[in-house]
Amino acid sequence: MPPFIPPLSDRSKTVPALSTERNLVSFPIEPLSEFLHGKERLETLRRIRSQLEQDPVFSNADKPFLSRENMYVRSLEKISHLVELKKKNKWDEDTMMIAMLMIGDSTPMFLHEALFIPTLKSQLSDEQQKTWLPKAENYEIFGCYAQTEMAHGSNLRKLETTATFIPETDEFEVDMPTISSMKWWPGAMARTSTHCALYARLVLHGKDYGVHPFLLQIRQPGTHQPVPGVEIGDIGPKIGFNTIDNGFLRVRKVRIPRTQMMMRNSQVTREGKYVPAKNAKMNYATMVAIRANIVRNSGFALGQALTIAIRYSLIRLQGGDRLPSQKNEELKILDHGMQRFRLTTSLALSYAMLMTGRVMNELHQKNLKNVLQGDVGLMAEVHATSSGLKAVTSDLATAHVEDTRRACGGHGYTWSSGIVELYTTLLQDVTVEGENTILHLQTSRWLLKTVLQAGQTKNLSAVPSGLRPALANPSILDREKALIIPGSPLTREAMADAFWHREARVLQEVLSRVIRDGAGEEAMAKSQVKMVELSRAHGEGMLVRNFYEALEKEEESILSKKGNPQTGYLPILKRLCELYAVHRLLVQSGDFMEDGYISRDQIAWCKDRRDELIDSLRTELVGLVDAFDFSDNQLNSALGRYDGRVYESLYEWAKYGMSIQQKGKDGGVLGFDEVMKNVFEEGRRINSSAATSKL
Amino acid sequence: MPPFIPPLSDRSKTVPALSTERNLVSFPIEPLSEFLHGKERLETLRRIRSQLEQDPVFSNADKPFLSRENMYVRSLEKISHLVELKKKNKWDEDTMMIAMLMIGDSTPMFLHEALFIPTLKSQLSDEQQKTWLPKAENYEIFGCYAQTEMAHGSNLRKLETTATFIPETDEFEVDMPTISSMKWWPGAMARTSTHCALYARLVLHGKDYGVHPFLLQIRQPGTHQPVPGVEIGDIGPKIGFNTIDNGFLRVRKVRIPRTQMMMRNSQVTREGKYVPAKNAKMNYATMVAIRANIVRNSGFALGQALTIAIRYSLIRLQGGDRLPSQKNEELKILDHGMQRFRLTTSLALSYAMLMTGRVMNELHQKNLKNVLQGDVGLMAEVHATSSGLKAVTSDLATAHVEDTRRACGGHGYTWSSGIVELYTTLLQDVTVEGENTILHLQTSRWLLKTVLQAGQTKNLSAVPSGLRPALANPSILDREKALIIPGSPLTREAMADAFWHREARVLQEVLSRVIRDGAGEEAMAKSQVKMVELSRAHGEGMLVRNFYEALEKEEESILSKKGNPQTGYLPILKRLCELYAVHRLLVQSGDFMEDGYISRDQIAWCKDRRDELIDSLRTELVGLVDAFDFSDNQLNSALGRYDGRVYESLYEWAKYGMSIQQKGKDGGVLGFDEVMKNVFEEGRRINSSAATSKL
Repeated sequence: MPPFIPPLSDRSKTVPALSTERNLVSFPIEPLSEFLHGKERLETLRRIRSQLEQDPVFSNADKPFLSRENMYVRSLEKISHLVELKKKNKWDEDTMMIAMLMIGDSTPMFLHEALFIPTLKSQLSDEQQKTWLPKAENYEIFGCYAQTEMAHGSNLRKLETTATFIPETDEFEVDMPTISSMKWWPGAMARTSTHCALYARLVLHGKDYGVHPFLLQIRQPGTHQPVPGVEIGDIGPKIGFNTIDNGFLRVRKVRIPRTQMMMRNSQVTREGKYVPAKNAKMNYATMVAIRANIVRNSGFALGQALTIAIRYSLIRLQGGDRLPSQKNEELKILDHGMQRFRLTTSLALSYAMLMTGRVMNELHQKNLKNVLQGDVGLMAEVHATSSGLKAVTSDLATAHVEDTRRACGGHGYTWSSGIVELYTTLLQDVTVEGENTILHLQTSRWLLKTVLQAGQTKNLSAVPSGLRPALANPSILDREKALIIPGSPLTREAMADAFWHREARVLQEVLSRVIRDGAGEEAMAKSQVKMVELSRAHGEGMLVRNFYEALEKEEESILSKKGNPQTGYLPILKRLCELYAVHRLLVQSGDFMEDGYISRDQIAWCKDRRDELIDSLRTELVGLVDAFDFSDNQLNSALGRYDGRVYESLYEWAKYGMSIQQKGKDGGVLGFDEVMKNVFEEGRRINSSAATSKL
Repeated sequence: MPPFIPPLSDRSKTVPALSTERNLVSFPIEPLSEFLHGKERLETLRRIRSQLEQDPVFSNADKPFLSRENMYVRSLEKISHLVELKKKNKWDEDTMMIAMLMIGDSTPMFLHEALFIPTLKSQLSDEQQKTWLPKAENYEIFGCYAQTEMAHGSNLRKLETTATFIPETDEFEVDMPTISSMKWWPGAMARTSTHCALYARLVLHGKDYGVHPFLLQIRQPGTHQPVPGVEIGDIGPKIGFNTIDNGFLRVRKVRIPRTQMMMRNSQVTREGKYVPAKNAKMNYATMVAIRANIVRNSGFALGQALTIAIRYSLIRLQGGDRLPSQKNEELKILDHGMQRFRLTTSLALSYAMLMTGRVMNELHQKNLKNVLQGDVGLMAEVHATSSGLKAVTSDLATAHVEDTRRACGGHGYTWSSGIVELYTTLLQDVTVEGENTILHLQTSRWLLKTVLQAGQTKNLSAVPSGLRPALANPSILDREKALIIPGSPLTREAMADAFWHREARVLQEVLSRVIRDGAGEEAMAKSQVKMVELSRAHGEGMLVRNFYEALEKEEESILSKKGNPQTGYLPILKRLCELYAVHRLLVQSGDFMEDGYISRDQIAWCKDRRDELIDSLRTELVGLVDAFDFSDNQLNSALGRYDGRVYESLYEWAKYGMSIQQKGKDGGVLGFDEVMKNVFEEGRRINSSAATSKL
């Protein structure tokens, strides 16, 4: 097992450059950590984490230096220890999920716990669950989620795998007739899983009933070899997420009992009769939860990158030494205006995502409660808007994590920065759980349909509130003016109004095109680019409004506990919120100026105000990232350590890596004896014979 | 040696989906390839490439599946074969550089050929070159470029390594007293190099003369072990470029002869007297050439990604099957508006970069000629603008390569897409050869200084032409209106005017701030964010103007050869150029609207015109990427193969990968016997004892 290398921070040995900065932070960190995580949950996180970080099996220090295969085996070792700890400490599901988070590494366990078991719970009948859940929960079997095929991901209607009912034997015959119909991508499939939740077209008496879930065993107990008729393989390396064994699966005419169709919803009787599902809305609720989670996780992922970059920017010195005021001393890179601008605006974004994740989650809970009581009124809007919001946040999060990596200069390019693995793994978020463009189109299609319907019924109640005035009276758009008052802080009303106005204008543009083209699906297909713009505008507006809303609720909560919302972190978060709103407006200023909504003076003031806010937050930054509460092993970064021992750590880590890397022949320099020795000798021969011939 | 797997395309077996599309292209491909590469050079490229692609040592098919160490050893095998071929075929330097490009992989050879040898040529005196050049050119020694230290990259003034003259023995003593003074990053240093060009502070009789180049041997012949007093190591994995052994070097009080100071420019006499360099401008010329190269390479890198994505988008079907017009058939993903929008605008960018690289290179040649004749008049502008241009293009290229990767959906996430390695390696361009923010500041500082000086002398001739009118009469900025005529194609004049106007406005803003703050370095430091904006505006304008200029020259060239510029590729490139200009304007439309320069109607027309241009280019796209002339082995992509055998290729490649990957114990499934077997057995034990206890 690797040691925790570079050694985890001893907080008492923090370098002065960081401890001095921490003393400048105006608010206590701990209450903010409690606000971000929830007080109880924070305690649990820390308790579990400190338990894990006593055991070197959970050290991430060796990860950069392992081959992909060894990285996978190491992740299995982590899994195996997690299972032991779970059983020993009688962890419940939630605690297990927390532990998986706290190890700061992805393992195939995620697919089993967060995807396979929930699928069993939502898709198996009660009777079926009695058979299968204990197997899965005690890890007698290990499962994955087999939906995507080589040629089809997003368009589920066109999946090719079939499950054909064989009345004679009361079985289904599963088949993947073509290469393109192979399952391709399922995580934990290549090597880890014994079973999968298989999505296949249900065929009964020659009729195709569309895609349904089945439970399929893919490997044999004891040997772990594929069952007959099944071919399993590894799809190969990816840009990130390489601890996970994404695999492929080809099944040729394999029979499974009818009872292995997952029958909680739709069913097939012994006679081969199809009984359709009563209520499929619950699936949408799950998707909403997963997306709310992506929003929140995006916030923390960016927060993790910023923890690294902001701490490093207080240690790293660079340039400025020729400025008379600097007297030949270099500046901390955070004190370069451009660096401060990038990191502070990114930090505002990470908080915006955390706050909107909070609001989305509350909305999801409310919606779930309604749905359980048979009220699906909120469903369409929550589902549709969660689509575009996931797309907006994953786009922004990946772009800003990458920008943050770049803000670490050359060292940001190395794995030991801690941002490489974070970024490349986060990159999947723009594609999984709904590819972003497709999600944007979902949101827009819902918005347009709602608006078109409202136009017919003359009832605007289903339309988001901020869009109603302009729909009722389109000409007001041209008269509306921004509520920004040069010289005064930007109010919540001014910012909300601006984002609603922009969205209403884009809506009007796309609506008139779509109506011109016939108002149907063909018309929408023609206006894809505009539709994506509309959904982006909608998601951007939500991020702004939700940030304000979450802070307002927190203010009420503080007041209700007789606290003082004028002190502590809340005033700081309010500045971050204002910064977030004005920065997003400026980044896309054309959208707000196009119809004269914002004047030149207002834009000029927005820019000045942004500068003011960034300057005012300078000494709070380290506190705002410390509050995320990432441990050094989670960060796995030489640059972002709590104690700031950056350069020593880069050196120690490189030397540790060399100690476990492959050597050359007889322990020599890798590649020298094997290859380069001959090249150099041949060079020497040529030169010495040339020298000789000159004599 | 790996086979070329998936087998290189047999063009006669191209899938119909692609061959049909190729028949729709309106122009012959070959003349465009000749225009892009130069006719003679294209022939050489192809000749060398076909020679290399007969030898499986140059197959890139195994690369994704190799550990970092084995990836490095494989790159040495490629080096060794390149050296053989060079000697056998008597390749000159240029041909060797072409061969290094044509293998479609990065090797440490790049550092020796493109950095170490040029440094020897530009920094060693003629006498010194006689000793060292043959050694390097015949590969008796192998060198790298050791400048960057752990704590200092961009600010060369603060490098810490010292070379202190020891008069008694006529030697320098090289020392790196601290961890932060270690050389950190040099490519080919960790394992490959025997020598390095070392940048160290020259200390004579206790006085510091600043940073100078020295030649230092770091490894011993025969054993390749570090020479005494020298510690060498590997800095560890990076996000990309992992075939290159970036290393660290620590030297403690090692003596080298005085004659190993590189003395072409500055010199130190036997007495320890310092003789300063006469003309350091040549170094700047080299930097300009390297940056012009980055601009051109950015264009080709993006072109490579687009070759993959555009071909794949003609094979991959996805959705649209519910549109009545589609009759249950899915659309090619290129026929989704959003996909076409992304890829076509990115393609316009890749051509813009190629064209501007062309213009920059001509400018560089002209400047070089001038400098050799003692005329440094062009130097400041060429050097300064090349800085910001490198920053703009590397920012745009990396963003668009990544967007192109995403446009390939899930398969874009795998290494077999061919875009993963391309992207992660390209990412270094935003940091190397001048970190982008610092480069932007250089360009801006030059612009501001030139303008401030012109203000004093009342002579605007040194100021870029498009900025002069507004400097002479600032109030005209508020009166200028865009030359865009709704309903008519956008003219070169209109686009050039728009980008000059925007730059002049930004210049005016930053100028007034800087003057307000005292007009010195401190004032500029305060306005970093604005200064970066100014340099971006400058670089963006150059890309637009250079694209038009390159096409105009090509038109003249065609006419001079009695060709017809109305047929063939030129009209298509003109549409791409117009698209490029209008798209960049729209992406940043706020910048052009802020002062009322562009009206709402003009913006609306720009959007419509952009749509028209994109639609008109739909059937030309595959021709425009085929013309880049990448071979399948260079692309190393299952998605972008010339023949379009995408799905078969994904499957074949995955199976090949499995055949060379590490297996588990006794050839079983990796990780099962080692770890998971116990987990599953324990699960079975728990479940069966629970079942027993229930009985």
